[in-house]
Amino acid sequence: MCRLLFTFGFILSSVLSFSQSEDSVFIRKIADEILVNGKAYSNLHELTKTVGGRLSGSPGMYKAEAWGMKTLKDMGADKVWLQECMVPHWVRGGKDEAKLILPGNKETPLDVIALGNSVGTGSKGVTARAILINNKAELEQRKDELKGKIVFYNYKFNPRFIQTFYSYGDAVIYRELGASWAAKYGALAMITRSMTHSVDNIPHTGSLDYIDSLAKIPAAAIGLWDADKLAKAISDNKEVKVFLRTNAKMLPDTLGHNVIGELTGSEFPGEYITVGGHLDSWDPAEGAHDDGAGCVHAIEVLRALKAIGYKPRHTIRVVLFANEENGLRGGTKYAEEAKAKNEKHIFGLESDAGGFTPRGFSIGLPEDKLEKIRKEWLPLLENYGVYQFVKGGGGADVGPLKELLGTPVSELIPDSQRYFDYHHTRNDVLANVNKRELELGCINMAALIYLVDKYGL
Amino acid sequence: MCRLLFTFGFILSSVLSFSQSEDSVFIRKIADEILVNGKAYSNLHELTKTVGGRLSGSPGMYKAEAWGMKTLKDMGADKVWLQECMVPHWVRGGKDEAKLILPGNKETPLDVIALGNSVGTGSKGVTARAILINNKAELEQRKDELKGKIVFYNYKFNPRFIQTFYSYGDAVIYRELGASWAAKYGALAMITRSMTHSVDNIPHTGSLDYIDSLAKIPAAAIGLWDADKLAKAISDNKEVKVFLRTNAKMLPDTLGHNVIGELTGSEFPGEYITVGGHLDSWDPAEGAHDDGAGCVHAIEVLRALKAIGYKPRHTIRVVLFANEENGLRGGTKYAEEAKAKNEKHIFGLESDAGGFTPRGFSIGLPEDKLEKIRKEWLPLLENYGVYQFVKGGGGADVGPLKELLGTPVSELIPDSQRYFDYHHTRNDVLANVNKRELELGCINMAALIYLVDKYGL
Repeated sequence: MCRLLFTFGFILSSVLSFSQSEDSVFIRKIADEILVNGKAYSNLHELTKTVGGRLSGSPGMYKAEAWGMKTLKDMGADKVWLQECMVPHWVRGGKDEAKLILPGNKETPLDVIALGNSVGTGSKGVTARAILINNKAELEQRKDELKGKIVFYNYKFNPRFIQTFYSYGDAVIYRELGASWAAKYGALAMITRSMTHSVDNIPHTGSLDYIDSLAKIPAAAIGLWDADKLAKAISDNKEVKVFLRTNAKMLPDTLGHNVIGELTGSEFPGEYITVGGHLDSWDPAEGAHDDGAGCVHAIEVLRALKAIGYKPRHTIRVVLFANEENGLRGGTKYAEEAKAKNEKHIFGLESDAGGFTPRGFSIGLPEDKLEKIRKEWLPLLENYGVYQFVKGGGGADVGPLKELLGTPVSELIPDSQRYFDYHHTRNDVLANVNKRELELGCINMAALIYLVDKYGL
Repeated sequence: MCRLLFTFGFILSSVLSFSQSEDSVFIRKIADEILVNGKAYSNLHELTKTVGGRLSGSPGMYKAEAWGMKTLKDMGADKVWLQECMVPHWVRGGKDEAKLILPGNKETPLDVIALGNSVGTGSKGVTARAILINNKAELEQRKDELKGKIVFYNYKFNPRFIQTFYSYGDAVIYRELGASWAAKYGALAMITRSMTHSVDNIPHTGSLDYIDSLAKIPAAAIGLWDADKLAKAISDNKEVKVFLRTNAKMLPDTLGHNVIGELTGSEFPGEYITVGGHLDSWDPAEGAHDDGAGCVHAIEVLRALKAIGYKPRHTIRVVLFANEENGLRGGTKYAEEAKAKNEKHIFGLESDAGGFTPRGFSIGLPEDKLEKIRKEWLPLLENYGVYQFVKGGGGADVGPLKELLGTPVSELIPDSQRYFDYHHTRNDVLANVNKRELELGCINMAALIYLVDKYGL
């Protein structure tokens, strides 16, 4: 493209009413503040480069909490505090290693990462015959062959889903429960193909859930090239062995915190709108998209509204939730305490799908209310890239607000295509976040919070 | 994000009629073919890694033409040929260099790139006082100070535009005409701030147009950090000098080609639908987004339609246009020959805004026709990410079809936020293209071509 020979832009799909036109001007002010004076990207720079990985219980968690307190104060919160909650304390314990061993002891290293919450193999590792299992049905058919083996799940991300979260929802059960399924039939360890559409070989971690009644066996993930290589080796030659050494262990629960900052409501200070992301992140990288982006999105909503002089009617609370990744203790604690204090929560918005260009919001409302906000609010957001309100839940952390208090909850829907390239890998770093895509998320979230504060739901 | 606790997707905004439902099934077939068996990414891999940069007249241009011929044949074109056209032959001629020189000969290197079509400085380079010019009005006010100086344009990309192409449209005139404006008042050379919202210091090239009646002076671009540094140095100290050495020259025109492949129409073989991108690219990198993506988009439209057994009613022509970047000779030649042969061209679609996730199409139709296709076709595309038909032109290369033959033309609108991070820089490489984002562009383009072929416009 050499020059501007075309004219294109976002549509302004309908003529705006008077109040819509007033809102349109206000949202333009929000957008200008974020695009011209925005702090989301520099805040994310600081979080990723001075704190880095911040898994529950790790030293990074405490650094991140201190960063959150300071940043919320600096960005203009009227009040900032920590809410205690006990969190799991899983540690990787050292470098994960794996090798593919062909007959004659011909070894090839596999790029591997232990799954979160998994147990380690012990210092000698596990060496055993590998069995290729393509899906759950095959596991059940071949259950008598599993004893003493390392089960390798090669279930693939389905490319047919347009929204990659559906591919994830379809495949992630192998990461979550695959170890226990294999342990049930006597397997020694489990290795899974990573949950990704990526074109690289980088392995993806993420939490597993052991089924209590079954043996806890070590579990890890390998990248796509290695998964294809291992699958081929097993298919070509039944005698393939795998060596796996992981050093992980679960320590006793430890004290963590939700970090909370608020703009106090001018009319209804005891009625709350929550906007947040989760502060914890997996250890291999900086947690830039997951969920540094969500944290700085939420902080920027507060900063921008304050900076342009908006006095919210309700109290707007930014919550940087603890322990989403391997326990959800922060989100649960926040809702439990809200319920115990009999707080009125009118809305909960989360960003936990990355800092990519926004396309919409998922929102838990009855169809008639959904239609109403589609008609009245979408024309205000379309210029900033949001063109859909989809019926659905909020993110994981605001889920308990809905369950315990019945609060309507919502989540930002960014473009999903690149999310699972970086998710839970060493590539989830700032360099893979685009400043303007991040800012557009902030704009739409701030606009939605403003509309909910002004009109309710 | 730890797991799938929400459900969200693209909206299916309306109940589909019978023919829409048939089309919906067919477009799903197109999508599955592209997502499961797609060749766009591997074709782009080949183009970027075995051909690389391919500026008009360069050895890369000839390699790219051969690649285009072979690839179109391999992908199933019924007929493939080259259409001759003379193209400009500008060469960079060596490494561009620049330095900021403070009093006392304190030198700092500047990361610089000569602008396309520019003349070189000669082997000794140009050393002169630098003058900071923020915009055209300031240039005119200070015209008497320009003689013997190097003019530095520091006009900034406007962050307020949501669509980054508006920021480009607003700023690019300094790159295009800034050298001649400065030459008019006796300046020795011109340096411009790069056309980008990026967070790095990488300079962006691109073509300039010399005004014939004025002296041709050397011209180059520097990245944003260096632009800020130079602007500050000049503001702090009027005695700042700049050294610039570029080796560029324009050689005589040479023979290039449009590469054309077609699926012959079953009902109207003499009526044409054109779909294309441009094959040339700037020299510092691989032209992955600009416009390798557009080329493989167009080729994939042909491949996928053929692979699923579609027999087009009209002839579908894939055109890999020559010389978009610094001359537009390919697009012009294609339309001129079509006019000379009295060909009937019913539609021209271009992709030249990168291989990012699609959001819509720009299309040159009267409002009533636009409304009709919005109503009938958008519900078919929304599941694949396209939610808008915006009134506008096509890309540069199909522009002459519209001008000479009155053909309705269109361009894919991908998400624009990252385009000007890579545009015309050494970072326009395959690693910055996401496979699935590229494929979604192919799906929507193939669907639109199918709908135009079936229903007309």
